[in-house]
Amino acid sequence: MSSIFGKLFTVSTWGESHGKAIGAVVDGCPAGLLLSESDIQPFLDRRRPGQSHLTTQRKECDIVKILSGVFEGKTTGTPISLIVENNDQHSADYEQIKDWYRPGHADEAYDSKYGFRDYRGGGRSSARETIARVAAGSIARKFLNEKCGTEFTAQVNSVGADSCACAATIETAIESARKNGDSIGGIVNLTIKNPPKNLGEPIFDRTEALLAMAMLSIPATKGFEIDEGFNAAKMLGSEHNKISCGTYGGITSGADILCRIAFKPTPSISQVQKTKNKNGEIGEISIKGRHDPCVAIRAPVIVESMAALVLMDLFLHRGSSNGK
Amino acid sequence: MSSIFGKLFTVSTWGESHGKAIGAVVDGCPAGLLLSESDIQPFLDRRRPGQSHLTTQRKECDIVKILSGVFEGKTTGTPISLIVENNDQHSADYEQIKDWYRPGHADEAYDSKYGFRDYRGGGRSSARETIARVAAGSIARKFLNEKCGTEFTAQVNSVGADSCACAATIETAIESARKNGDSIGGIVNLTIKNPPKNLGEPIFDRTEALLAMAMLSIPATKGFEIDEGFNAAKMLGSEHNKISCGTYGGITSGADILCRIAFKPTPSISQVQKTKNKNGEIGEISIKGRHDPCVAIRAPVIVESMAALVLMDLFLHRGSSNGK
Amino acid sequence: MSSIFGKLFTVSTWGESHGKAIGAVVDGCPAGLLLSESDIQPFLDRRRPGQSHLTTQRKECDIVKILSGVFEGKTTGTPISLIVENNDQHSADYEQIKDWYRPGHADEAYDSKYGFRDYRGGGRSSARETIARVAAGSIARKFLNEKCGTEFTAQVNSVGADSCACAATIETAIESARKNGDSIGGIVNLTIKNPPKNLGEPIFDRTEALLAMAMLSIPATKGFEIDEGFNAAKMLGSEHNKISCGTYGGITSGADILCRIAFKPTPSISQVQKTKNKNGEIGEISIKGRHDPCVAIRAPVIVESMAALVLMDLFLHRGSSNGK
Amino acid sequence: MSSIFGKLFTVSTWGESHGKAIGAVVDGCPAGLLLSESDIQPFLDRRRPGQSHLTTQRKECDIVKILSGVFEGKTTGTPISLIVENNDQHSADYEQIKDWYRPGHADEAYDSKYGFRDYRGGGRSSARETIARVAAGSIARKFLNEKCGTEFTAQVNSVGADSCACAATIETAIESARKNGDSIGGIVNLTIKNPPKNLGEPIFDRTEALLAMAMLSIPATKGFEIDEGFNAAKMLGSEHNKISCGTYGGITSGADILCRIAFKPTPSISQVQKTKNKNGEIGEISIKGRHDPCVAIRAPVIVESMAALVLMDLFLHRGSSNGK
Repeated sequence: MSSIFGKLFTVSTWGESHGKAIGAVVDGCPAGLLLSESDIQPFLDRRRPGQSHLTTQRKECDIVKILSGVFEGKTTGTPISLIVENNDQHSADYEQIKDWYRPGHADEAYDSKYGFRDYRGGGRSSARETIARVAAGSIARKFLNEKCGTEFTAQVNSVGADSCACAATIETAIESARKNGDSIGGIVNLTIKNPPKNLGEPIFDRTEALLAMAMLSIPATKGFEIDEGFNAAKMLGSEHNKISCGTYGGITSGADILCRIAFKPTPSISQVQKTKNKNGEIGEISIKGRHDPCVAIRAPVIVESMAALVLMDLFLHRGSSNGK
Repeated sequence: MSSIFGKLFTVSTWGESHGKAIGAVVDGCPAGLLLSESDIQPFLDRRRPGQSHLTTQRKECDIVKILSGVFEGKTTGTPISLIVENNDQHSADYEQIKDWYRPGHADEAYDSKYGFRDYRGGGRSSARETIARVAAGSIARKFLNEKCGTEFTAQVNSVGADSCACAATIETAIESARKNGDSIGGIVNLTIKNPPKNLGEPIFDRTEALLAMAMLSIPATKGFEIDEGFNAAKMLGSEHNKISCGTYGGITSGADILCRIAFKPTPSISQVQKTKNKNGEIGEISIKGRHDPCVAIRAPVIVESMAALVLMDLFLHRGSSNGK
Repeated sequence: MSSIFGKLFTVSTWGESHGKAIGAVVDGCPAGLLLSESDIQPFLDRRRPGQSHLTTQRKECDIVKILSGVFEGKTTGTPISLIVENNDQHSADYEQIKDWYRPGHADEAYDSKYGFRDYRGGGRSSARETIARVAAGSIARKFLNEKCGTEFTAQVNSVGADSCACAATIETAIESARKNGDSIGGIVNLTIKNPPKNLGEPIFDRTEALLAMAMLSIPATKGFEIDEGFNAAKMLGSEHNKISCGTYGGITSGADILCRIAFKPTPSISQVQKTKNKNGEIGEISIKGRHDPCVAIRAPVIVESMAALVLMDLFLHRGSSNGK
Repeated sequence: MSSIFGKLFTVSTWGESHGKAIGAVVDGCPAGLLLSESDIQPFLDRRRPGQSHLTTQRKECDIVKILSGVFEGKTTGTPISLIVENNDQHSADYEQIKDWYRPGHADEAYDSKYGFRDYRGGGRSSARETIARVAAGSIARKFLNEKCGTEFTAQVNSVGADSCACAATIETAIESARKNGDSIGGIVNLTIKNPPKNLGEPIFDRTEALLAMAMLSIPATKGFEIDEGFNAAKMLGSEHNKISCGTYGGITSGADILCRIAFKPTPSISQVQKTKNKNGEIGEISIKGRHDPCVAIRAPVIVESMAALVLMDLFLHRGSSNGK
């Protein structure tokens, strides 16, 4: 079930970068939640590119429609089908890379695995796929917020080597990369306020394990930390025991949950790079198109959405622990 | 399915620290693999405590028995039931903590979630639970090694603040913590050599996402990195594209897979700590028992085992991508 | 995962009778299958009502569109999103039954379970939901037919009390029921020719167990038989052992698989019936709308589709039994 | 997940007829249920052979032990490991059939699928495998009985051609078959009294669909009916609508649930039969050993157990429908 996330709040995503549309089917949303497109659209707007000069200039409208599962303004307990049509597609941009693998991308991997790939904009491996996650995640957020007051807030923590990340430093680092036809990595911080208590199912469905999976399933991610993260490895027990962690034994304590997620630099850069093709021949490539110089910039709403999907799934699971 | 790991190579683990036994049922192992207890025991021996003065002095024999799924020395394709009896149990040690929650442990979380807990040695949240993972993982390792030459090697990379981790530094750091009735965190490095190519199922079952989940499901883990990890966030695209990563788009490239996992310090320390009980009363606790001053020391074989379970599951999945 | 069918060839269906559209997302279809709408449409046409006077006179176009997962005429291994828009909706017909539960329908059950329901045409419990199954099933059929020559053929075996079912008897029985403002049950026979050998996963995912589940998930079904079915209960071992069964121990033998499925009469009848409403008050109802007097008539293509989904899922699973 | 049943109350079974033991791991049982071996043993005793001259004379003790998941007499919410050791094994009896496939059995199917099989008593395909189902099912029964007063009662309805099944007719039919070195089929009726209301998850996890799967996963089953079953196909809507069904739209109504399950005759008979071996050579076989002349006789407790597993799983799921 490779494009399906969750066991009880199950999100089945579909759609390619340059196909007709992108969408998700959300199965398992409880009945009775007030829901309309206006609950979802603001999150898609946050994700959308073209809003600042720091992101790709692709103009995507990304208007969501609800096709099922809502009646008279409320969810009915049946699957919610969400669809976003693709509009601003410059497929021609990609003819050049039809035969040459873009370095650092999944092009070669898809060809090798499936014997075939949709080369237009990365197809399914495109970051546009995250539209479906954000749309589905927004339903989970609304539910958890109304039920438990839970809030998901993510933001860029740093970009490139600079660990202190004020807005100005970030902008400078990204502009500098862009001017050089280059891209740059970044770190996103996530805070979950008022998470429901007692979520997480030992042994394998620990809250942190599912959050880690969710975050590492976002394209371009390379690391995940919770609470003190790698810093915990440097601490003494007497110090660490004093920290109020978001989870113990994989179960949420009710305290805020703090995570950090590492994003690698966008592999699409306009600098000339060495590459190869299906036949193993060596060539050169300069990736035109319109690309984010720093994927971390648009990532926060995706990170929040994935976290919401994890907690929502565990929330629906919670009733089974004591059979009430 | 909280104690079940994997979709096709499915491991169902069970057992408490001070119960009668600990075990796992492995469902989905292909038929025809030569298998006996002697293939599994060496990995349990590596995990076993009491081997050096750096680990807990609990003497656990941890002898594995295969109860099903093997006939005439070969797996039959039916579930393999593995069992390890518990022997050296000092339940009395735990009477003292029956009513007081151990700081940094899951005691309070279990009580809150289940309304009840097995207080003997952490019950199910004990590190002894990992016996089942190592036993099951050893079958996956054998299969992948025979089929693809895959090798899983993990080792302690650092302990505490010291980033350069020669054996001497590690020993000094741990001894120092122990003498102070304290414990210390550490980082484990994992290398997967010769991983099968084309494993990983986009979108959500990416190899790195499943590895992250597997690692964060190990008790005391707080962070996960793959390839350059958090360092990737500091890099430029032109640099990062030159790295040979273990996965692209979640699919293994055939290159070695490198991961790092952060372990917090053992929460069980003999120093006097403040704590509370079920009624919210404040008290003091000094945890006696016999505990590892640094859980990272015994973690490598657990890390290797979980990685093997992930790759094995994806390996069985691979046939479905092109229907061959 | 209530609206999701299958583990490896996973079909996620959505849509209500009188919503905007109905659809399915097929996750796990192998790459490289030639596929276009014209491979799917003929099966939807067979399912469509209004074709003969024996079925409802609702005129549904039911035109399928493929929104993702196909590129240059071939499946890419990514999710295939299928959509059929709803057109001929007479929602007004249903205002009358907004408050009164239709006898024999799921109206009361949905209200009780979800505290709320989409009363237009049964909403999600409508037979229109089976459009998604037929669309998804047609992909499985094409794959299995090209790969193994498998053919799925179902037909009405009998209608009402008459066990010998020539076309004339069937027509007479249905016309008679309709004239009386009544409906009538029926039995559908399914033959799977050239099923792939060695499918089915003991213990619980036996071929016959999954077929039974698939068939009993079709609205209005009440019974399932395989091979000799209930007749086997009357036989001696010496007789029964001579039969060539489609499965042994849950595993396909390669011989044709024969099943029979019982359909109850359509609960929607125009005769005046006693009923009740949400408050438990008793009333009378005569269901107008346009309904099939015998659901079994349009069921064969649905039965074939569900069988194809079962075999397809098991087919993708087969590679894992011996690890090849 | 072939030997795993259920999504939230998950039963992982293992063990061969002539292996060391047979068992099950039950994951997802709510905490706080009073449970000891004495709650399980009576159901195993009912299943046990050798109690009357109508069943096999194999003397099996089948004593269950709980290895985990229970502390101070109550379930803790962690996996419950159940084990029954195998004792009375006459492996020698099976040497004769090592090379020849028993007609009507899964011998050839297992050899074909796995390339190899445990020929001792059918190995995993033996009816002894159902011990694990009965043991696990007894926990579900206890929970549902205490929580909702639910009762599961199955009994033999008929044996062979005789549709009216008084005890005397049954005995005569079976004795007659046995004397002729033959076996005979039978039908088992199941009644579920006081089932919890609102169970079942449309679309695919309908109560009747899961019951059908559960029943057809029992060895030797060939048919399943619910409510009026195949008889419903003969009825008019005006008649059928008056019946109080156990489920509507797949959701339990709270009314009793009635099912019928068809069992084929035991394929193991002592009459001389034609058979073949792995090389396709034709031979003759007379199956000695000690076999039930009518598997339906011992089936009721197995049928009840599987029904309990289905309802228990749906019961744990119910909390997610409205998010309460």
